[in-house]
Amino acid sequence: MTTKSRCICSGFLCSIGNIVNGEEKERSMKYRMKHAPMGWNSYDYYDTTVTEREVRANADYMAAHLKPYGWEYIVVDIQWYAKNTGSQREKYQYIPFGEVSMDEYGRLLPCTDRFPSAKDGVGFRALADYVHGLGLKFGIHIMRGIPREAAHRHLPILGSDALASDIADPSSICKWNPDMYGIRMGEPGAQEYYDSIVALYAQWGVDFIKCDDICNTNLYVEHPYSAAHEIEMLQHAIEKCGRDIVLSLSPGPALIEKAWHYETYANMWRITDDFWDTWELLYDMFRRCELWQNHVGCGSFPDCDMLPVGRLGKGFGQERQTNFTRDEQKTMMTLWCMFGSPLMIGGELTKLDDWTRFLLTRQELLQMLDADYVGRQVARDLRHAVWSCVNEKKGERYLALFNFMEQPAQCEAALPETEAFADMCGQPGTIRARELWDGTELIVHNDCLSDEIPAHGVHVFRIDKK
Amino acid sequence: MTTKSRCICSGFLCSIGNIVNGEEKERSMKYRMKHAPMGWNSYDYYDTTVTEREVRANADYMAAHLKPYGWEYIVVDIQWYAKNTGSQREKYQYIPFGEVSMDEYGRLLPCTDRFPSAKDGVGFRALADYVHGLGLKFGIHIMRGIPREAAHRHLPILGSDALASDIADPSSICKWNPDMYGIRMGEPGAQEYYDSIVALYAQWGVDFIKCDDICNTNLYVEHPYSAAHEIEMLQHAIEKCGRDIVLSLSPGPALIEKAWHYETYANMWRITDDFWDTWELLYDMFRRCELWQNHVGCGSFPDCDMLPVGRLGKGFGQERQTNFTRDEQKTMMTLWCMFGSPLMIGGELTKLDDWTRFLLTRQELLQMLDADYVGRQVARDLRHAVWSCVNEKKGERYLALFNFMEQPAQCEAALPETEAFADMCGQPGTIRARELWDGTELIVHNDCLSDEIPAHGVHVFRIDKK
Amino acid sequence: MTTKSRCICSGFLCSIGNIVNGEEKERSMKYRMKHAPMGWNSYDYYDTTVTEREVRANADYMAAHLKPYGWEYIVVDIQWYAKNTGSQREKYQYIPFGEVSMDEYGRLLPCTDRFPSAKDGVGFRALADYVHGLGLKFGIHIMRGIPREAAHRHLPILGSDALASDIADPSSICKWNPDMYGIRMGEPGAQEYYDSIVALYAQWGVDFIKCDDICNTNLYVEHPYSAAHEIEMLQHAIEKCGRDIVLSLSPGPALIEKAWHYETYANMWRITDDFWDTWELLYDMFRRCELWQNHVGCGSFPDCDMLPVGRLGKGFGQERQTNFTRDEQKTMMTLWCMFGSPLMIGGELTKLDDWTRFLLTRQELLQMLDADYVGRQVARDLRHAVWSCVNEKKGERYLALFNFMEQPAQCEAALPETEAFADMCGQPGTIRARELWDGTELIVHNDCLSDEIPAHGVHVFRIDKK
Amino acid sequence: MTTKSRCICSGFLCSIGNIVNGEEKERSMKYRMKHAPMGWNSYDYYDTTVTEREVRANADYMAAHLKPYGWEYIVVDIQWYAKNTGSQREKYQYIPFGEVSMDEYGRLLPCTDRFPSAKDGVGFRALADYVHGLGLKFGIHIMRGIPREAAHRHLPILGSDALASDIADPSSICKWNPDMYGIRMGEPGAQEYYDSIVALYAQWGVDFIKCDDICNTNLYVEHPYSAAHEIEMLQHAIEKCGRDIVLSLSPGPALIEKAWHYETYANMWRITDDFWDTWELLYDMFRRCELWQNHVGCGSFPDCDMLPVGRLGKGFGQERQTNFTRDEQKTMMTLWCMFGSPLMIGGELTKLDDWTRFLLTRQELLQMLDADYVGRQVARDLRHAVWSCVNEKKGERYLALFNFMEQPAQCEAALPETEAFADMCGQPGTIRARELWDGTELIVHNDCLSDEIPAHGVHVFRIDKK
Repeated sequence: MTTKSRCICSGFLCSIGNIVNGEEKERSMKYRMKHAPMGWNSYDYYDTTVTEREVRANADYMAAHLKPYGWEYIVVDIQWYAKNTGSQREKYQYIPFGEVSMDEYGRLLPCTDRFPSAKDGVGFRALADYVHGLGLKFGIHIMRGIPREAAHRHLPILGSDALASDIADPSSICKWNPDMYGIRMGEPGAQEYYDSIVALYAQWGVDFIKCDDICNTNLYVEHPYSAAHEIEMLQHAIEKCGRDIVLSLSPGPALIEKAWHYETYANMWRITDDFWDTWELLYDMFRRCELWQNHVGCGSFPDCDMLPVGRLGKGFGQERQTNFTRDEQKTMMTLWCMFGSPLMIGGELTKLDDWTRFLLTRQELLQMLDADYVGRQVARDLRHAVWSCVNEKKGERYLALFNFMEQPAQCEAALPETEAFADMCGQPGTIRARELWDGTELIVHNDCLSDEIPAHGVHVFRIDKK
Repeated sequence: MTTKSRCICSGFLCSIGNIVNGEEKERSMKYRMKHAPMGWNSYDYYDTTVTEREVRANADYMAAHLKPYGWEYIVVDIQWYAKNTGSQREKYQYIPFGEVSMDEYGRLLPCTDRFPSAKDGVGFRALADYVHGLGLKFGIHIMRGIPREAAHRHLPILGSDALASDIADPSSICKWNPDMYGIRMGEPGAQEYYDSIVALYAQWGVDFIKCDDICNTNLYVEHPYSAAHEIEMLQHAIEKCGRDIVLSLSPGPALIEKAWHYETYANMWRITDDFWDTWELLYDMFRRCELWQNHVGCGSFPDCDMLPVGRLGKGFGQERQTNFTRDEQKTMMTLWCMFGSPLMIGGELTKLDDWTRFLLTRQELLQMLDADYVGRQVARDLRHAVWSCVNEKKGERYLALFNFMEQPAQCEAALPETEAFADMCGQPGTIRARELWDGTELIVHNDCLSDEIPAHGVHVFRIDKK
Repeated sequence: MTTKSRCICSGFLCSIGNIVNGEEKERSMKYRMKHAPMGWNSYDYYDTTVTEREVRANADYMAAHLKPYGWEYIVVDIQWYAKNTGSQREKYQYIPFGEVSMDEYGRLLPCTDRFPSAKDGVGFRALADYVHGLGLKFGIHIMRGIPREAAHRHLPILGSDALASDIADPSSICKWNPDMYGIRMGEPGAQEYYDSIVALYAQWGVDFIKCDDICNTNLYVEHPYSAAHEIEMLQHAIEKCGRDIVLSLSPGPALIEKAWHYETYANMWRITDDFWDTWELLYDMFRRCELWQNHVGCGSFPDCDMLPVGRLGKGFGQERQTNFTRDEQKTMMTLWCMFGSPLMIGGELTKLDDWTRFLLTRQELLQMLDADYVGRQVARDLRHAVWSCVNEKKGERYLALFNFMEQPAQCEAALPETEAFADMCGQPGTIRARELWDGTELIVHNDCLSDEIPAHGVHVFRIDKK
Repeated sequence: MTTKSRCICSGFLCSIGNIVNGEEKERSMKYRMKHAPMGWNSYDYYDTTVTEREVRANADYMAAHLKPYGWEYIVVDIQWYAKNTGSQREKYQYIPFGEVSMDEYGRLLPCTDRFPSAKDGVGFRALADYVHGLGLKFGIHIMRGIPREAAHRHLPILGSDALASDIADPSSICKWNPDMYGIRMGEPGAQEYYDSIVALYAQWGVDFIKCDDICNTNLYVEHPYSAAHEIEMLQHAIEKCGRDIVLSLSPGPALIEKAWHYETYANMWRITDDFWDTWELLYDMFRRCELWQNHVGCGSFPDCDMLPVGRLGKGFGQERQTNFTRDEQKTMMTLWCMFGSPLMIGGELTKLDDWTRFLLTRQELLQMLDADYVGRQVARDLRHAVWSCVNEKKGERYLALFNFMEQPAQCEAALPETEAFADMCGQPGTIRARELWDGTELIVHNDCLSDEIPAHGVHVFRIDKK
């Protein structure tokens, strides 16, 4: 039997992991982890306001309750360098021309009001140490480019004779955040600036960088990939820094015609606009996963965005429970896992209810984030979708029936017409199907898997031959 | 070591081929050949004018000289059903409201003026038999839809109570060919019409259908995939007909956001507009191959279009030798093969010169059309490209250096940064590189493959560890 | 005082009307009527089903009740040549491949089932005579091009050696109607075909041609003015026919960047998609009138489409009263008149209620359709609009206040800031404003006209200096 | 005979000029000059580098040689507030983050290095006085918005409690110039800032403001009219300032669907991208003039951009004579005048050769800039164009024949088919045509004006009846 992995890279490297030619050699390529990252991100609950204390509390919770299931990244999202965040919420999410913490080289630093351990210029070092001490990994959000203030103040760039005003491109801005200027391509000092910030992050112990305004620079409607050179500079800086750092790109939707570039220079890229807890967005994700399913593999994980589950929205001024039904949440988790998306919990961990914890700890689903599991859409129309996921090495096969309707509906998949299962068929009564969420077994008649699926819900089965 | 194939399907089926559950069972899925089709197509040399005698002569040549290398399809392209083709060349390529051969069910038949063996209603049966007798396979071109004349004459549909005028959609036409109306979705008689033509073709012995005006219905700028339902009807008709028929879709460019649909319902789909012998088009194919490289696999072969080599253009009124330089031809063949595109020779076979025959019979390149060979773009910029191709089962690895410049240029690839080769690196002097076109061996210094490549040319190497 | 007319043509001609150099000279330019056409059109009530008896009844009504107010055109809309219209309503508005009445030269004739007086090949002659006998004018709808059936049957063209199949363009079709093929540009026989149909219409006594699928050929998204040459051929045919025939183009929206071409070759052109009785469409017309206001003049009347008032929709399967409120109807009539749009009543005249008749017979508004009245938008925002209309020759000035809100609102216009009224201002208590719909007088304080306007309503004032 | 002017406003105001209700009343509407502005602009010769001495020299020349023909505006174009302009020409036209002269309220001041009379904070007062002393008018270029530096420095706004950082919109920038931020709509302090700068300009004696990055904000592809509110604020500021200031908007192309807004709030607006001395741009202007011809009138002059004649380009690093042939220059002048565009000389006046002075001083053409002259395109195709221009008050009529071909060609216009001339026709031998550029008389046969026109050239005739 031929075996294959989901890996899209063309060859031998993935199979031997990331270690090339021993320890003595500089790493020369992007980090190629075999499993999609799993973690927690501060945005969905805290918006721009998260504090060090809150980050630590979430890390504590993860270490205590989620780590055994593979959850490991703790990511501080946007505006950790800004003062008075959240103070003008009714007018601005991001305060224009507001005060930011920055060193003499135009490198942003954590605002000590919210991150007191960053005092004395140690940055996120102490917080990262704490997270690492729990056996977890630490990540931060950044905006592409260099602070506008650094350019207007003509600050020097570390490791270069150039000034911030030399490398800042005054016509390259973010549509929705006022903090940065994009960095010019090929300008002396440009790579050095990215090197200088990533070196700082590596020194802090950062394991994960979520870079924003870079995956789709949506202000530039006709050039939405206008910051491609900044992706390359950032990846080169990471390769030089001596630390395995996951590079995650936002916002989406990523451009399918640039898939090769994302795969070459990044580890994750958002295939969607900001995802929130509405059925319309969840339904639309099936289209996006169809589009990107051939692009999942070692070190390359198209990203369906954070999981808006549990408690959400406090930083946005209105804390709430997720608007998703339980069936919708199961649909989301099943799709994300079979597709192979990174998983980042958006809800506040310290307020996690039993149901949500149950949702987030299904081992059989979570293991599908390993690149040996290959997910494929089998069918999709306006009423339902079918996905398969197969691990040929282990001989595991899964099939999911999704129901898009507003009411329960009978869904089915003819196994002989489904590639991954055709070889099982033909002998009556020999196929077993066990549902992963509730453990029930289903009898498969006539090689056709058929079941009543709840509204907006899913049943996902492990399929075995008796 | 993990092994993997280029196959994009998610599972076990490909590895066991197309035979599912024994002979007694109806085939229920598309034909999944492991090797991209290779053949000859009448269009580039004959345009709309090819005759039976000419087709046989090309088949004879193929059987005698090319078959050992895997060439097997003989495809009669557009307008085989039309009278007086080529007679109004200065005004029309396709004569509007011209006479066509058609049976009483609105099914087009070969014009007996050009295909005399089709007399007495046997259609292409005799010609197909002849081709099969040579050990080759036989293909035809069709336009999607039903002849306009059938609709205006209200002809009956075989196997249905509906009339042609019931299923013809008067607002669905081809931008460039006046013969057909598209067929309505879900209309009684619609599937039956497609069933009726494919049954006829199967009865003739057709092995390959190239359906036009269906891959990109370019008249409908905002709905270029407006005939998706006709692709599905055609594939269903093929699955019912009891014969393994390759389904090839034209014209391009195919829509990357519909990749899953092409993969589900077709075997080949054109990723480009009509390809001819100009550098601009060849250069642009690198962009297209980058885009589609993750979509090659068993039964699914994105199509770079015919090879305009040797003698071309007679039917267009001006016979000529290909405008490509020899280096450009090598670039084309190398890219098509490493990518895994079907290969259809456009030039007249009976006039094939030695050089072109040499070009078309490089076994080491042609074998890369097997789905076990995985081609990947390693790098690309305005000056050059690098592709790798790997067969993990056999342990073969290839690397190609392409030069886009107007003059010879030094090109190089750092093997440690190239996934497929990284595990070879680190021990000086142990990597061998043999060029496939001229057989020379290159010494690899410092794990970096470097060579001077001719203008618009390529060097492609088999890479081995001593 | 400078006087000026709304006429957009640049000179002396308009002022002397259409009579150039006496009777003995062929007319060489388009018909330049000074007043926008006013009439009734069969579409909004009858769709494709109107019969001769119904047309006559509407003409009778118009002659008896509306003619004194300037209403004069009776227009038979789409499908008068087709059989069994309305018989497949649930599936098709226009029956594909249905039977049409046509003479031996491919010229469509009235279907005698619905238009019995057309028997013996006299066409619309008898009906036109009847309408003329009432002192009214007669108009018909046509689709651009030549019947598809004429092309497929290779019919001859009157006055030419060419055949229908020579001039029909098989790739030029209508998006929504299956009857015709467009006609090729510059093809021998093309102008002759248009000459032949217009000569026939002139012989019938047609005064008004509404040509469809020509103003915006909306199938061709990137070439929505693809039938420009057919407009020119049609106008040339009209100029040759010896009869003053109004040329009206559909459907909209017309392309503002082609304004000069419409003005040069047509008398009316639809500036909107089909207009029906919804507030959204009425509200949007303010934007369209803003856009086209500089293009109204002698012989050139941008067209806001028919007035869906009174009884509507019978032919569409559901007869109903207009959905517009009375205030919305007044808003519509006021805007159409101040702007200078042609007025075509959509409702069934024989069922006209008193209110609607009142609406349609306001002489002071209707006179604004004369090109000496110049309408201009003074202001517009999301809540309201202000229009002025001035006849400098007569010294008449009007001002309308429109309220877009869902509730009554105070609207105002500062007269000193409004060009047409600035010279009146400055002397307290000397400006009189009389509302045209209800006749009330308003006192103008501080040179500011202010009034409470009903929801979606209008007050329109004649402004005079005491 | 009906008389009419080109004025697009709907009424009485234009005819009585700009004086409304006597001197004692504040001006409440935009400045409505009857004649399109004529002047000189520093850009085409000096780019960003012009100095006070050079401006004065050009003013001197204009006063001495061109003023009698109506030339009167002296306009200082872009970057008069910037230091070191031109010093980084090979890299930047506009130096990013460069030093600018600015007062404590964020209002830009002339750079005293280049404009020494601006010392002691008097701004352009002295230079304007000098220009006024010559009997001429003085204009300046500005960028919309507020200096970025003012926002980053949180400067106060004169007449408001707001700071620059409150009103600056950090996401509203210019695509090509790095100096400014756009100003928020409806923000307290926003109107006050525009009031403060226009008050300063009025105090300086500015008669003409050319505001850039406002007519088409071309960075925002989907919202190219994103600064509409800034146009309104600027016009309101002008209305308040107590001085008649022409408001000219750049860059083009203006959006035809916003014509009403331009007409309401500005005096000139660029209907084209930057115009330079190439035939392609000149040829394209015929399309643009066709589009905008109905929008010329008192106070409203669509702008074909500067005249690149004589000596050009010094500030761009390469001084040259215009690339236009003499015939092309005549074509340009004739079209600009008949259409009614403002005329701004781009060439250096002190180096004006005799030919160019001849070109710029044809009184009969220049008078057509008066709004009583109505220009209209009569015909246009790929080979030629015909324009008419008529002053009904004076009884003057003109006709121009333009030849677009690369060689001389016979062009003609049938006068009976040309609206403005039809009433002259019918009596053989009674029409006289005198060419304006060379004074020759042409005999008109058969009411058809026919002449051989040079390549890319024009003959423009005054047409009279004997």
